[in-house]
Amino acid sequence: MGTTQLETVPEPKYWHLRTVLSEALESEFSVGEILPNERDLAARFGVARATLRQALEQLELEGRLQRRRGVGTTVAPPRVGVAVGTEQHAWPGAGEDGWQATDSALAVPPATVADALVTGAEDPVHIVRRSRVTHGQPVAAELLYVPQSSVPDLSAIDAPSGAARARAVLRELQRLELEGQESAVELGSARADEARELDRLTGAPVLVVTTRYLAHGRTAALSVATYRADTCRLTFGDTGGVEIHQDPERRAS
Amino acid sequence: MGTTQLETVPEPKYWHLRTVLSEALESEFSVGEILPNERDLAARFGVARATLRQALEQLELEGRLQRRRGVGTTVAPPRVGVAVGTEQHAWPGAGEDGWQATDSALAVPPATVADALVTGAEDPVHIVRRSRVTHGQPVAAELLYVPQSSVPDLSAIDAPSGAARARAVLRELQRLELEGQESAVELGSARADEARELDRLTGAPVLVVTTRYLAHGRTAALSVATYRADTCRLTFGDTGGVEIHQDPERRAS
Repeated sequence: MGTTQLETVPEPKYWHLRTVLSEALESEFSVGEILPNERDLAARFGVARATLRQALEQLELEGRLQRRRGVGTTVAPPRVGVAVGTEQHAWPGAGEDGWQATDSALAVPPATVADALVTGAEDPVHIVRRSRVTHGQPVAAELLYVPQSSVPDLSAIDAPSGAARARAVLRELQRLELEGQESAVELGSARADEARELDRLTGAPVLVVTTRYLAHGRTAALSVATYRADTCRLTFGDTGGVEIHQDPERRAS
Repeated sequence: MGTTQLETVPEPKYWHLRTVLSEALESEFSVGEILPNERDLAARFGVARATLRQALEQLELEGRLQRRRGVGTTVAPPRVGVAVGTEQHAWPGAGEDGWQATDSALAVPPATVADALVTGAEDPVHIVRRSRVTHGQPVAAELLYVPQSSVPDLSAIDAPSGAARARAVLRELQRLELEGQESAVELGSARADEARELDRLTGAPVLVVTTRYLAHGRTAALSVATYRADTCRLTFGDTGGVEIHQDPERRAS
């Protein structure tokens, strides 16, 4: 096989196939079109089924393909830009942001959340569940953790749970003066409940956005939002108008 | 197997193992520790090697494990927070931001970049290559596309290529008045050259940050930066201090 260079890691076979398939998607298929079945594709490109499957998984990860039960593999539409950061800070639920509050319960949060909120490890907090829909598609699921001290006037009497309760928590939260907010984005995988809400399989890659809302010099609320990584592009900044398609080949110089 | 509910998708076996392993990592192992080999692990948890491998891959994706050639599988340190957005906008290369310019060349960019820059499809632009190192670890690789019209006074005579040329392009760019910048984050996979620079394998998941720099009412430069998804958490906002560890279990309510 000739000489081997110390620094050279050979390109995996599936990666080469991925590149070839990617070009075929662009020249031969249109958005929404169903791909031939795996056996036919493997035969056409002269590869083993396992290699083909790896390449398809890769293209799914990159948002180029969608695999749906009962439908098959289709060419994905371009990712949807979803605005995450805005120039002016705002409490969750303030204004029209595409989020819908669906439930709220008082429960002890995970230890790391309790740390961030500086509540006691055993102190229950309000956990508001929200979901975000864009163009009729579920794009994100959120758990918003609100310490009881952030919403001291919330009455336990009316709407003890459900969407009405969730809205009441948000309304009370909005009475605080928001001093700042900061977010972090990282790669994660969907828990079973998130996966169901996002119409994905458990373990599917997601983009996790953690946002800390600051008031009175402390963290008044903490949001952990899980975005579909296959269909979403998270935008930060003035207009959210970065319209670059992210096929790695197209990123090549 | 009892009744089946319409909405119930059974939890895959590897996901259950992933959860069990995740707990074992926390209680029995410390950061940097090498895990037992796959055969021993599979025997201990009573699963097939294929299932074990899927669970390990999942934990690697989530940044809990690292797999390195010649070392084996080790427990990963917590992800490093890397500031991406800042309150005040700034040109790339202005101030100490951990980026190092390594090369620059004049070349025709990919079609989508040319579209965003509103240059002609065949017009060469300056392509500056930069890399970002945090705590001695490579965390990101960037291609910065700068139309020639953004740096009209750049002289072709001195430093025609290399790091010196790259710094000259950035210096000229900084003479423009920056009107705004906007970013988008999405999931991608590392090209061979990026993978090499980031010390990863080709196709490894990365977080792709596209930033558009605006001056004179148009896009004066476009950056496509590729961050390691396993080790990085991208922070946006005032202080970048969101210190929530992102184990999905810990996100559970």
